[in-house]
Amino acid sequence: MSKILVFGHKNPDTDAITSAISFSYLQNQLGKNTEAVALGEVTDEIAYALDYFDFEAPRVVSKSDDDVSEVMLVDHNEPMQSIDDIDDLTVLSVVDHHRINDFNTSGPLYYRAEPVGCTNTIILKLFKEHGVDIPKDIAGLMLSAIISDTLLFKSPTCTDEDIKATEELAEIAGVNTEKYGLELLKAGTNVKDKTALEIIDDDSKNFELNNHLVHIGQVNVVDFQELLDRKKELLDAMIKENSDNSYELFVLIITNILDSNSIGLVAGNYTEMVEKAFDGTLKDNQIDLPGVVSRKKQVVPQLTEQFENID
Amino acid sequence: MSKILVFGHKNPDTDAITSAISFSYLQNQLGKNTEAVALGEVTDEIAYALDYFDFEAPRVVSKSDDDVSEVMLVDHNEPMQSIDDIDDLTVLSVVDHHRINDFNTSGPLYYRAEPVGCTNTIILKLFKEHGVDIPKDIAGLMLSAIISDTLLFKSPTCTDEDIKATEELAEIAGVNTEKYGLELLKAGTNVKDKTALEIIDDDSKNFELNNHLVHIGQVNVVDFQELLDRKKELLDAMIKENSDNSYELFVLIITNILDSNSIGLVAGNYTEMVEKAFDGTLKDNQIDLPGVVSRKKQVVPQLTEQFENID
Repeated sequence: MSKILVFGHKNPDTDAITSAISFSYLQNQLGKNTEAVALGEVTDEIAYALDYFDFEAPRVVSKSDDDVSEVMLVDHNEPMQSIDDIDDLTVLSVVDHHRINDFNTSGPLYYRAEPVGCTNTIILKLFKEHGVDIPKDIAGLMLSAIISDTLLFKSPTCTDEDIKATEELAEIAGVNTEKYGLELLKAGTNVKDKTALEIIDDDSKNFELNNHLVHIGQVNVVDFQELLDRKKELLDAMIKENSDNSYELFVLIITNILDSNSIGLVAGNYTEMVEKAFDGTLKDNQIDLPGVVSRKKQVVPQLTEQFENID
Repeated sequence: MSKILVFGHKNPDTDAITSAISFSYLQNQLGKNTEAVALGEVTDEIAYALDYFDFEAPRVVSKSDDDVSEVMLVDHNEPMQSIDDIDDLTVLSVVDHHRINDFNTSGPLYYRAEPVGCTNTIILKLFKEHGVDIPKDIAGLMLSAIISDTLLFKSPTCTDEDIKATEELAEIAGVNTEKYGLELLKAGTNVKDKTALEIIDDDSKNFELNNHLVHIGQVNVVDFQELLDRKKELLDAMIKENSDNSYELFVLIITNILDSNSIGLVAGNYTEMVEKAFDGTLKDNQIDLPGVVSRKKQVVPQLTEQFENID
């Protein structure tokens, strides 16, 4: 039985890494031969969670091994966010909580998407549907993903199902969600040792909006000023990334996890789309995004709508 | 609360009609305000099932009502097979068992696809997951869909889950599956009162294969000869449909439900793709398709592969 790779999106966040781990574990318990891999290095936040629950980071790959022909996607579906050779592989299944875009198959598959805050909330359901117990360490990683994706339940993407899932997982993992959660999120806000490229790129994704390539990054902080002091350096890095990768627009969302507000830094050809999307004005490539914490729910649909108005 | 429309694909088959009915019923039990509608008139097979279980046919629409903005798709996802104004509507959910193609959303949604033989097999799971009882008549319609889609379990698309679902539904509906099933399938093979256009078009779907518009119809018979006697008439109708609708290829699969074989009639610009896909030779626009009963599993992927080789 040849091996099946399981992975989340490029530039993996905590959900992308841990949903690959939890879904791969579930599939192996059900008799499949799978390996969780990562399409990028772990962030400080993931490293904190892996260390806390004493778990190894998955192997990092950019394309599949030569003997692999089948894969299972978690936490993404868009080919642009997936493994480099995705077009040569058969996707057996997808478990996701994002919009569906540019994802085409030649045959039927298992596809489970729900509009909840975190992929691991859906994977918890799958564990229950199959009657498989969740080990303590994996429950801890799944819990970490829900905390991360919902910013400790403050994101508008957070649903009652996510909160209920957190309660169940915290009990299995044996942690205090509020206390552990704040430590986890803070671990992800350490930007002072990072280069500008790392800051803009660590949690960033490509989106094809009406045939325009838009890159949207997000970075969590506990204090905006630390990054605004480096604004020129960040914008220079964004402009270079636009040029190197043919991005037509780069939006960096700087999110304060303590008060749930964001500031956007914007570079590229379509900056007016950002002003229209958020009904605001850019000043020196910067725009206030009050109350915005979710790229998926508060940024991507709004930008998609604006780009759809372009002929 | 404005109404949500629930519907299967155009040129509805038994699964398309009945999955709209069963899923709409489930959603209404869960507190939603939905109406099952149909994107085309019922076939003789569906009429038999509706009559047997004393159920009204859903209202036929081609576009949504003016006050409708949200829809739920069953048994399809491809926009070409959907309601005419699909691009103006928000898709809240999809329950399907087909490939995913050209289906794009701007935000997250509920998407449940499984590689099983029938949409109603998945919907049965959803009833159970939500703890909702299935009324006798709706169980009978769901059972009819599984019989229809799997040709009484003879199709390669049929899975153990479909068979198990049939057993549960037959018990609720109070029918003998084999006996009822054969009567149902036979009801769908009455072609003598049909025009050529009805025969080629009643159960037909559009597929965009590498930007080529391919139309694939299927008709069940108990004796090939009845349709082969009308071959010229059928081919003329297919050529006219190609011209009227810009189809580049029309494939009509004539399936004998008693011995599980098919004959293909082929018209259009890319007939050699059919020869390559099935490793056979067309004689007078006709090709033997031994063992072929499933458009989804034994025709669409094979044609997709051939069209992908076109530059």
